[in-house]
Amino acid sequence: MATVLALDVGGTKLAAAVVDDSGRMLGRGRVPSPTDPDPELLYEALLACAAAALRGADVIPGDLDGIGVAAAGPMVWPSGEVSPLNMPAWRGFPLRKRLAEEFASERVLIHNDAVGLTVGEHWKGAGSGTSNLLGITVSTGVGGGLILDGRLYHGFSGNAGHIGHVVVELDGPACACGGRGCLEAIASGPNAVRHALDDGWRPRPGVVADGVALAAAAAAGDEVALRNVARAGRAAGTAIASCASLLDLEVVAIVGGFSQSGPSFWEPLQRAFTTHAGFPFAAACRVVPGQLGEAAGLLGAAAFVLDPDRYGWDPDPATGH
Amino acid sequence: MATVLALDVGGTKLAAAVVDDSGRMLGRGRVPSPTDPDPELLYEALLACAAAALRGADVIPGDLDGIGVAAAGPMVWPSGEVSPLNMPAWRGFPLRKRLAEEFASERVLIHNDAVGLTVGEHWKGAGSGTSNLLGITVSTGVGGGLILDGRLYHGFSGNAGHIGHVVVELDGPACACGGRGCLEAIASGPNAVRHALDDGWRPRPGVVADGVALAAAAAAGDEVALRNVARAGRAAGTAIASCASLLDLEVVAIVGGFSQSGPSFWEPLQRAFTTHAGFPFAAACRVVPGQLGEAAGLLGAAAFVLDPDRYGWDPDPATGH
Repeated sequence: MATVLALDVGGTKLAAAVVDDSGRMLGRGRVPSPTDPDPELLYEALLACAAAALRGADVIPGDLDGIGVAAAGPMVWPSGEVSPLNMPAWRGFPLRKRLAEEFASERVLIHNDAVGLTVGEHWKGAGSGTSNLLGITVSTGVGGGLILDGRLYHGFSGNAGHIGHVVVELDGPACACGGRGCLEAIASGPNAVRHALDDGWRPRPGVVADGVALAAAAAAGDEVALRNVARAGRAAGTAIASCASLLDLEVVAIVGGFSQSGPSFWEPLQRAFTTHAGFPFAAACRVVPGQLGEAAGLLGAAAFVLDPDRYGWDPDPATGH
Repeated sequence: MATVLALDVGGTKLAAAVVDDSGRMLGRGRVPSPTDPDPELLYEALLACAAAALRGADVIPGDLDGIGVAAAGPMVWPSGEVSPLNMPAWRGFPLRKRLAEEFASERVLIHNDAVGLTVGEHWKGAGSGTSNLLGITVSTGVGGGLILDGRLYHGFSGNAGHIGHVVVELDGPACACGGRGCLEAIASGPNAVRHALDDGWRPRPGVVADGVALAAAAAAGDEVALRNVARAGRAAGTAIASCASLLDLEVVAIVGGFSQSGPSFWEPLQRAFTTHAGFPFAAACRVVPGQLGEAAGLLGAAAFVLDPDRYGWDPDPATGH
């Protein structure tokens, strides 16, 4: 039985699990992400998390068949120097090299966190058994990953899956990517909140104006919140329709963030998808919530190593692309 | 040396070529597409075209290693019953079965014409040597095809590559696909012409108001024509940027139609691409004209059979979709 250490590196929390090839989590660890600017402090917190998972699973590093990591981007892929947007302590941090040394392992695979979620949902969740899947997370950012013909698709430089930067409004708002009118510029939590505040939404006293509060206000019937959550859902449904037409997808799985906010997000999303996915083959694509919740990233990271034929890659290609 | 018969079935013309595995055309045939509603008359015209190519190449059917066909869609794939939108004589016409019987060949592969163009440009044209290519044709319709990780990508039901139905305007015009705001609804020849006429464009006396005339008027400096060709170019550049972000592409090759109309189309296209492809990895994608012109479809059709590892598929899957 193969056993790997899976790590999930995000701006809010660091998580680790020891995962076997049936997808069982034998041990877990979790800590809030340190906000200190010292890169070594962040790295030590990640190691502490890993140690907790190993201890919980009663596994020693020498027993591991490898390490899989899902990390907030951007990063240099496949070499694994990471510069997570919301974690300024790491800029070009050689995470893959450091973990390979630390655990004396040659099989360390690091990919984007949204790619990890997608692989997790394909391996053990909403996309299980399908051959053409788009995974999306609509949260602080809008990210995604692609399983095409049953295998993880990386793209030319490892950046495939950026559905957050599919354009949904020709003259839409400027986006952090440098573009304009991107899905993320409209539907990410912070951007949806900013638009809602401009539109007159006010959270209840003492409540922080974030995506969670906006979704809660919409669920409670606040009209301005409803209108703005619907705007995000509509943008997501439109971009998903574009992807279904372009890629002839079987399933789209939406994980995290607004996908948790119920009909105020889902109904406008499904309506926009139906409006824009005109061809029968595109309309036949199923748009569903993810099934794994927070475990998706860890399971996906584990699957990079545990199922290399479908999800793995050569992290050290002798000849570039 | 392998030799195949390549067929290109379009609403305007039928074309055939005998092609060897170096991409050389040993013989060719071409006839205007019959407009008669008799399906057999259309089929006979295609056979006449094939006979001319075989005679020109001094090849007999028994020498052929297979037959590749690029045909106007839609079609049932991979079984090859075709219903070309602009050729009402064929509705569910069993083209693959008929050709297999006619030429006593088990290797008959039929795919969408835009897929043929893309494969041709990848095999011997603008995408040669690249691993991640989107081919587009902006003409009577807007079609496309995808080479991902060096191989033709079909999608779940053989319909991948429909960039014409990527949404570029949330509240844009209704599209023939049943959707709304699609690239094709704005940038196809007939749709661009319709919009230009509504906008006040008038072709010169005796000139038919089509895409060619609109492009010529723009090239001659007609302001309304310029504005409308630019609108099509801008829509195409925006959709291409979405694809570059989603798929992390290396090259996009534009073939046929407006791509021939010079700076009045290309400059707005490139400007829109630059505006919307924000991330460096997306901006690095090269957007270029195709190199093969009308030969792209025939060469692509030949490559379906001649280079099965990259472009082929099982036309008779025991366990198909």
